Amino acid sequence: MNLQPFKSVVKNFKAVFLDSYGVIKNYNGLIDGVQETIDYIRSENIVVRILTNDASRSRTQQAESFYNAGLRGIQKEEIITSGMMAKHFLEQKILAGKIAYLGTENSAHYILQSGLEHIAVRDIDLDDLDEIAAFVFLDDEGFDWNTDISKTVNLLRHKNIPVIVANSDKLYPVSKRHVSIATGGIAQLVESMLSKKFIHFGKPDSQMFMYAFEQLNKTGSYNKKDILMVGDTLHTDILGGNKFGLKTTLVLSGNTEIENAEMQINSTGIIPDFICKSIVE
Amino acid sequence: MNLQPFKSVVKNFKAVFLDSYGVIKNYNGLIDGVQETIDYIRSENIVVRILTNDASRSRTQQAESFYNAGLRGIQKEEIITSGMMAKHFLEQKILAGKIAYLGTENSAHYILQSGLEHIAVRDIDLDDLDEIAAFVFLDDEGFDWNTDISKTVNLLRHKNIPVIVANSDKLYPVSKRHVSIATGGIAQLVESMLSKKFIHFGKPDSQMFMYAFEQLNKTGSYNKKDILMVGDTLHTDILGGNKFGLKTTLVLSGNTEIENAEMQINSTGIIPDFICKSIVE
Amino acid sequence: MNLQPFKSVVKNFKAVFLDSYGVIKNYNGLIDGVQETIDYIRSENIVVRILTNDASRSRTQQAESFYNAGLRGIQKEEIITSGMMAKHFLEQKILAGKIAYLGTENSAHYILQSGLEHIAVRDIDLDDLDEIAAFVFLDDEGFDWNTDISKTVNLLRHKNIPVIVANSDKLYPVSKRHVSIATGGIAQLVESMLSKKFIHFGKPDSQMFMYAFEQLNKTGSYNKKDILMVGDTLHTDILGGNKFGLKTTLVLSGNTEIENAEMQINSTGIIPDFICKSIVE
Amino acid sequence: MNLQPFKSVVKNFKAVFLDSYGVIKNYNGLIDGVQETIDYIRSENIVVRILTNDASRSRTQQAESFYNAGLRGIQKEEIITSGMMAKHFLEQKILAGKIAYLGTENSAHYILQSGLEHIAVRDIDLDDLDEIAAFVFLDDEGFDWNTDISKTVNLLRHKNIPVIVANSDKLYPVSKRHVSIATGGIAQLVESMLSKKFIHFGKPDSQMFMYAFEQLNKTGSYNKKDILMVGDTLHTDILGGNKFGLKTTLVLSGNTEIENAEMQINSTGIIPDFICKSIVE
Repeated sequence: MNLQPFKSVVKNFKAVFLDSYGVIKNYNGLIDGVQETIDYIRSENIVVRILTNDASRSRTQQAESFYNAGLRGIQKEEIITSGMMAKHFLEQKILAGKIAYLGTENSAHYILQSGLEHIAVRDIDLDDLDEIAAFVFLDDEGFDWNTDISKTVNLLRHKNIPVIVANSDKLYPVSKRHVSIATGGIAQLVESMLSKKFIHFGKPDSQMFMYAFEQLNKTGSYNKKDILMVGDTLHTDILGGNKFGLKTTLVLSGNTEIENAEMQINSTGIIPDFICKSIVE
Repeated sequence: MNLQPFKSVVKNFKAVFLDSYGVIKNYNGLIDGVQETIDYIRSENIVVRILTNDASRSRTQQAESFYNAGLRGIQKEEIITSGMMAKHFLEQKILAGKIAYLGTENSAHYILQSGLEHIAVRDIDLDDLDEIAAFVFLDDEGFDWNTDISKTVNLLRHKNIPVIVANSDKLYPVSKRHVSIATGGIAQLVESMLSKKFIHFGKPDSQMFMYAFEQLNKTGSYNKKDILMVGDTLHTDILGGNKFGLKTTLVLSGNTEIENAEMQINSTGIIPDFICKSIVE
Repeated sequence: MNLQPFKSVVKNFKAVFLDSYGVIKNYNGLIDGVQETIDYIRSENIVVRILTNDASRSRTQQAESFYNAGLRGIQKEEIITSGMMAKHFLEQKILAGKIAYLGTENSAHYILQSGLEHIAVRDIDLDDLDEIAAFVFLDDEGFDWNTDISKTVNLLRHKNIPVIVANSDKLYPVSKRHVSIATGGIAQLVESMLSKKFIHFGKPDSQMFMYAFEQLNKTGSYNKKDILMVGDTLHTDILGGNKFGLKTTLVLSGNTEIENAEMQINSTGIIPDFICKSIVE
Repeated sequence: MNLQPFKSVVKNFKAVFLDSYGVIKNYNGLIDGVQETIDYIRSENIVVRILTNDASRSRTQQAESFYNAGLRGIQKEEIITSGMMAKHFLEQKILAGKIAYLGTENSAHYILQSGLEHIAVRDIDLDDLDEIAAFVFLDDEGFDWNTDISKTVNLLRHKNIPVIVANSDKLYPVSKRHVSIATGGIAQLVESMLSKKFIHFGKPDSQMFMYAFEQLNKTGSYNKKDILMVGDTLHTDILGGNKFGLKTTLVLSGNTEIENAEMQINSTGIIPDFICKSIVE
């Protein structure tokens, strides 16, 4: 496995798309030295976008969170979240009724600000579903797993409505050795119980890539060959980047560990163009 | 769809295997009139066995439960549970160490009485897994879904041990219109998170059929053609019975509703030999 | 189920995306009356694009095929194929080596005209895979299923390269009652043998929608709300259209039969905005 | 990974169940030295049964095949095939009509000798399916993959009958480095096209284990603890043996290669009790 210094890779591109978790930050907060890398990228006039499978917070909240963690110079306009994609879908397709959700009040607040009323699963009366027009899996927090997941199954057995998964990630790391089940994992359980397929947002789907690419081309002229996608997860970042036609870099500072990287690349067939230990090395 | 009276079907057999939930009882307790049917079966000298995908209670507890609900004449020896199969497996294969479990203390108590110590997921220290020799999914109650399912994922990521699913049912009905996610559903979520396949017990697997069949033949001479399997679920009772070589009867008093029965038979390809509204009609 | 006349639906949009097979033509050739509908759409100044999961022929060949079947006025620039998306990916990502393929010589010729050499599976020496840089599933014809599918499995077991599925459709109709296994079905068999996930092109993925949408906006100003997607298949046309944020119309002239439509919508959870018998009714 | 000499393992048991392919023979014929191991087992008065996922030949033909390859002393009564299990099922469940099949004439001949007529897919008239009462996947040879797999899909779309997979293996080795798609792989493709689950026979299902165990106990008294299952495949031999409650030995002379064994055990969670290089070492 040929590990390359990140700077020697990124300097050949006009733009870089960075995943957030596992690339810029991890369970400890910012990855050490990341400010210096971001500054280097800026100094080389390489445009940055952050593409994150996160539907729990708005881009404004995410920009604040980078700032509060000590990372300077990330603008909210540079952040693209899977939640934004889900929000966009709902605005286009759901024009009346209430939107039911599983997640925190905060996540519901920012995603569902499309003029429609939203209602948490816990507050739904299963005998009165007439007004429910769509369902969104937003976050793995903000509800009681003991009762609300089964309640979601019952709701969706009795009411045939569009179901949106705003973040398809199945697991996220909470410490060096431990993970937690994420929104996409819960959604998959419910899909399996119902034998239905929901509408999933987030990498590897191309919507976030497309959004970032269109935005970029409003401010200049970029071909796909000019853009490097950087991520720590083969199935989301690298597969999505490859499929959209970008060059891809796998970093080993998150989900993919250095001792398993080669085996996972071989067993999945998802092949990054470059591999780096992290964006700071 | 040709519905037949249950008595006209069962009277042609020397033995009958009955599923419990959806056949003898439902969320309300005993199905009305079931005593009369059991009495009829006895009067025709047809041997009865009850095959249930339940790992939460011992056969003694289940026999008591029938008695307490008002059903007379069911002996504990006539009851075969998927929990008994899991218990048997553990006794054969796990000879030292502790058995970790997700479920109630009661379910752990009766299944794991094989001389080995058992420990609930909540009480496990993830940094000290040396003694853990096996893991069992026992019940959907007795733990906190918010924390213990993710904790199970972490345990099984770090320790490669046999994992047993003592009841593979994914859903069970809690009222006429509502269901709850069962042990098998939770196990499937964890399997999917880990990309592993666990060892599943319960119908449609042939172990319970085999156990009942062997037992029967200690008291007389029975061919598979002499036995009728009766159940409310195509994927467990009917598939399992068909595969073991028994004649099968689907009843419409539980998971399979009369208005969907034909469509589900066609779409699954699991074909019962007979269909009855219930065992009391 | 509320069936609407197609003209009364389409007249409210500025652009219409039509699937080809099952919408414009079927196993018999053109659907009767389709010229009149296309003429009506033109007369209303509604822009047309044809989005087809077909990787066996170039857009030029497809335009000729419409012409030869008697349909006038379809320009090759109005046709977008999943093969074009695969071709684009290969041009971006595979810069050296040979591209192996399963399909006809013709399909290979037009997709793989990117300067790289292509080689049919039948001509590959499994002991000399050094130069093979990528693999493409192009068509269900042009090779011997008895030998070349297993040969593909062996090739991909020994050489870890990007694998592209240029058309993800699993089945296509060959007569009123009969279907044939399509490229996507064969690819899925090989994926399953290898436990790998390939890179799939074609609806429901958003790439073709995105391409058509970008093209449209070079000639005018179109919002997603201005565009109607019309197709005969829930899992590709309707799911893809819904996810991209377009209004969708299911037509019952192809894969989805009128007697099963409602059941399939309910069981899949993929909900079209409109349902029409066909585009000519 | 702790490799043990096979003799030191097997000598502690009263009976041994051996897989055939990858254990006794491989693509080259008999594994060198296997006669000596069989003779040793006999000399220790350990009872032998051969459990093979093969439905293409009768046990008599398989015994002859061992003899012709030079292995002496294997009786046909010691051989248990998945084809025997499928045959038994058909005899119990299908009492009238014709049985359609995909496979060789020979395989059909021996499995379907239950008094019912059998008909190859190639000879079926899709417009006259009235008499077809069941379908069996028997072998990967004896038909034309280009036409007969799609024809099978059409048959099973139009006629809802029990479908039996007489051998669930998905791949088999044809040389040191190459594999071929087996019956179970073709069946899985058709299942996926139809979204149905067929009735599968063969390891890891417990039927063959149960049959061998019952047979054994007609000639003596054997507990499960007295029996060692030996196989080269984790998902069939080892999972099936574990689940039936036997001790299991993985050998590295077939599907599982020495360099991948530990990784595969970890990634599947299927844990053999012992690991040996082969039964001759």
